[in-house]
Amino acid sequence: MNPPAAIALLTDFGSSDWYVAEMKGVLLAHAPAAALVDITHTIPPGDVARAAFVLARAHAAFAGGTVFVAVVDPGVGTARHPLAVHAFGQFFVGPDNGVLEAAYADPDASARRIADAKLLAGASATFHGRDVFAPAAAKIAQGGETTWRKLGPTVEVPVRLPDPWPTTAAPDSDGLVTHVAHVDRFGNAITALGELELEAWLNQRSVSGVVLRIHGARGSSVTEIRGLARTYGEAGEQPIALVGSAGLVEIALPGGHAGLRLGLAPGDVVELHHRETA
Amino acid sequence: MNPPAAIALLTDFGSSDWYVAEMKGVLLAHAPAAALVDITHTIPPGDVARAAFVLARAHAAFAGGTVFVAVVDPGVGTARHPLAVHAFGQFFVGPDNGVLEAAYADPDASARRIADAKLLAGASATFHGRDVFAPAAAKIAQGGETTWRKLGPTVEVPVRLPDPWPTTAAPDSDGLVTHVAHVDRFGNAITALGELELEAWLNQRSVSGVVLRIHGARGSSVTEIRGLARTYGEAGEQPIALVGSAGLVEIALPGGHAGLRLGLAPGDVVELHHRETA
Amino acid sequence: MNPPAAIALLTDFGSSDWYVAEMKGVLLAHAPAAALVDITHTIPPGDVARAAFVLARAHAAFAGGTVFVAVVDPGVGTARHPLAVHAFGQFFVGPDNGVLEAAYADPDASARRIADAKLLAGASATFHGRDVFAPAAAKIAQGGETTWRKLGPTVEVPVRLPDPWPTTAAPDSDGLVTHVAHVDRFGNAITALGELELEAWLNQRSVSGVVLRIHGARGSSVTEIRGLARTYGEAGEQPIALVGSAGLVEIALPGGHAGLRLGLAPGDVVELHHRETA
Repeated sequence: MNPPAAIALLTDFGSSDWYVAEMKGVLLAHAPAAALVDITHTIPPGDVARAAFVLARAHAAFAGGTVFVAVVDPGVGTARHPLAVHAFGQFFVGPDNGVLEAAYADPDASARRIADAKLLAGASATFHGRDVFAPAAAKIAQGGETTWRKLGPTVEVPVRLPDPWPTTAAPDSDGLVTHVAHVDRFGNAITALGELELEAWLNQRSVSGVVLRIHGARGSSVTEIRGLARTYGEAGEQPIALVGSAGLVEIALPGGHAGLRLGLAPGDVVELHHRETA
Repeated sequence: MNPPAAIALLTDFGSSDWYVAEMKGVLLAHAPAAALVDITHTIPPGDVARAAFVLARAHAAFAGGTVFVAVVDPGVGTARHPLAVHAFGQFFVGPDNGVLEAAYADPDASARRIADAKLLAGASATFHGRDVFAPAAAKIAQGGETTWRKLGPTVEVPVRLPDPWPTTAAPDSDGLVTHVAHVDRFGNAITALGELELEAWLNQRSVSGVVLRIHGARGSSVTEIRGLARTYGEAGEQPIALVGSAGLVEIALPGGHAGLRLGLAPGDVVELHHRETA
Repeated sequence: MNPPAAIALLTDFGSSDWYVAEMKGVLLAHAPAAALVDITHTIPPGDVARAAFVLARAHAAFAGGTVFVAVVDPGVGTARHPLAVHAFGQFFVGPDNGVLEAAYADPDASARRIADAKLLAGASATFHGRDVFAPAAAKIAQGGETTWRKLGPTVEVPVRLPDPWPTTAAPDSDGLVTHVAHVDRFGNAITALGELELEAWLNQRSVSGVVLRIHGARGSSVTEIRGLARTYGEAGEQPIALVGSAGLVEIALPGGHAGLRLGLAPGDVVELHHRETA
C-alpha cells in the first residue's frame, strides 16, 4: 500500500481550544502515517469567504493527492451537506457552504456528498470537523480517488461563493478597478487582480507601464504608484506595487507596513491606469 | 517493529520562544517516525488546572497508545516527581502536580514515577519538558506498555486536583448548580455539567425540559434560556443552551459571542431548573 | 534508502497567512516522509537578529542531520545568495543575511551557495522560502551531505551578524557586563552571558558567589540579586538569577514576570560583581 497523502487543515478554531487537536487525533487514528499540515486556524469565526480566499492561495503548493480539510462551518448540524471535492488532482473536504470555492476553479472539479451512514449516524450535531470531515479526509488520504468515489453521490450544484472583488473597468477611462482582498503580516495589501488579467490588460495597447491609484483609509486618501517593481528589495521610502508570490498585484512598503501607512483594508479600491509611452 | 504511537503536546510555553521546538527536537531524535501533534501551548503560564481541563477534553479523540506530554511545571527542578500514567489505553507524561488529572478519570489508571537514572542525571534543573518528559514520552511511543512498566516504580497516590466546579443542588429547589468552566474562541461558555449528569437529573422526574439561569458579568446580571437546542444553526438573536461537542452543557450565541454578550467567565454560576410539563 | 531527516522551520511569516503552509506543501511534495517542526513563525517581520538568536537556542536539541530552514528575508529577489550551511552535523538553509549565524558557531561550518539552475530559474522574485529554500531543504533532508555538496560552490565569506551583546568588563571593577537578550513568555529575562563564560570568570578568583545589578526600565531603576539559584522553585517574592535551560544567565520571578516587574527589555544592562568570601 502506498503511504497516505498529506492532509492540510484550515479552520476558524484558533489555537487555544482543543478542537484542532481532536480533529488531528481522529485523522491519525484513521491514517497514522499521514503528514498533517496546518494552513491556518485564525480565520475569524464563521468567515467562510476569508477561508475560501486562503485555501485558494495555499493549495497549489501542495502535491497531487493532498487532502484539504476546511472547516468554517456555522451551519454544522443543519441541512447543509458535507462534501468532498476532487479538483486539481487534490481533494477538498468541508461543508457545502462555499468554503471549498477554490476547488471549483478547476473546470473538472467534481463534488460528492459524504453520505457514509456509519459516519453520519455517530456524528455529534456540533462538531463535524471531528466526527465527519476528519474521518472522511483520513480515508481519502489513504485510498485516494477510489475511496473518494465511494463516499456518496455526486453533487451537481454545490454552494458557490460570489466573487467578492471582481475586476471591473474604471468608469471614466480604459483602466481597471480591483480591490484589496487581504493585508498580510508584512502589511502587504494583496489585491484580487491576478497576473494574467493584468498582462492581458497591459497587452491590449502597447503601453510602457501602469499607474496605480489606491483609495485607502476607506476612501479618504489616494496614493499613486507609478510602475511595477519586481522585488521588495527595490523599495525606498515609498510604497511600491508588484506581482506577489500569490500571483496577485499587491501594494507593499518593505521595511514598513503598507496597510497601516495607507490605511488599507479588504474592500478598498485600487485603480490601474495606463501610463502612456512618452 | 510497529510504527511509534502519536505524541501530543500540551504546554504553557507559547509559540514565540524555542521551548516547544526543543521538546520536539528531542522527541524526534528518540522517535523519528512519531507523529507529533500540538494540543495547545497557550495555557496561561503555570495554570495547571486549565491544562488539566484541556487535556480532559482532548485525549478521547486520539487512538489507543497515544502519548500525551503535558508540561505546565512551575515546580520543575524541585521534589515533585516526573510521572507517566497509563489510562484509557493511552499514556500521560508530565509532572506530578495535577496536570495529568484527566488520566485518573479511568478507574484503572496506573501511575509510575520516571526514575530512569540516566535521564535524570543529565537533566537541567529548569526544563524537564525537554530533558525528562520528552525522552520518556518518545520511549513510550516506541515501546508501549512494556517500556512504560520499566520507567520506574508505581506511584500509589499521585497529586490530584480538586474538582474546581462540582455540580451541586440548587439551594431553594430541586435544580442543579454548575459553573462556566471555559469560554472558547467562538464565545461558547462551556459549563462543567456533563451530558450524563444532565440526563440523570432530567430523568429523575418526568419533565419536558429545562430552564437555565445564567449569572453573568460576575453575578450582576441574569439571563434565562428555556430548553436545550440541538445545533448552533437553530439560534436566532438570543443565546441558546446545548450539549456541545465535549459532552458538556454550553451557552452559545452563534454568529455572536455568548461570553461577551452575557459577560461570562470561568467560575460564573449556571443554574438548571425543571420546566414542568404544561 | 534511509528515512529523511526532520526539517525545522523558522520564519517571520506569522500564522495567519498561507506562507508557511506553502513552504510545507513544497517540502512534503519533495520529501513526503519528512517530519516537519515549527520552531516559531512569530519573529518580528525582518528581524534577522532575533531569528538568529532563536535558531542558536533551538538547534542543539535536534538530532544530527536535521535541516533548519530559516527564512527572514527582506532582501528576497535581490543579489543576496541563498545558502545551505553544514555545521554541527546539521544543515542550515536560508538567505545569506546573517539569519544562519548560529551555524558559524561551529568552527568547521561550511557554507554553500544554492546554485541549482532549475530551482532558481523557476523561482518567484518575492518568495524564496517556497521556491528555493523549501525544495533545497527537502533535497538535503533526503540525501544528506552528498546532496548538500552538489547544491553549489562553497561560500568562503558568508554574511555574519555582529554579536549584539558581547560581554565586557565592568568599567570600575573586575565585574562583567552583559545584556538582556530576550524576555520569554514566562517573563524570564535571558541575558547573553553563557554558563561557561560565567564559570571562567567566577574561577578567576576564589569567590563564594556573585551579585547581579540589573539596570531595568531602560536604565531608570536598578535591582540587585545576590547569588544564583538552581531552580525556579526556590524563588520567594523576589527576583532570582539562575542559569536557565539555554545555558544562559537569566533573571526570573517565578509566579510573576521578571520582565514586567523590573521593566526589562532586550539591550538592558546586567552587571555581575564578585561577592567576596566573608
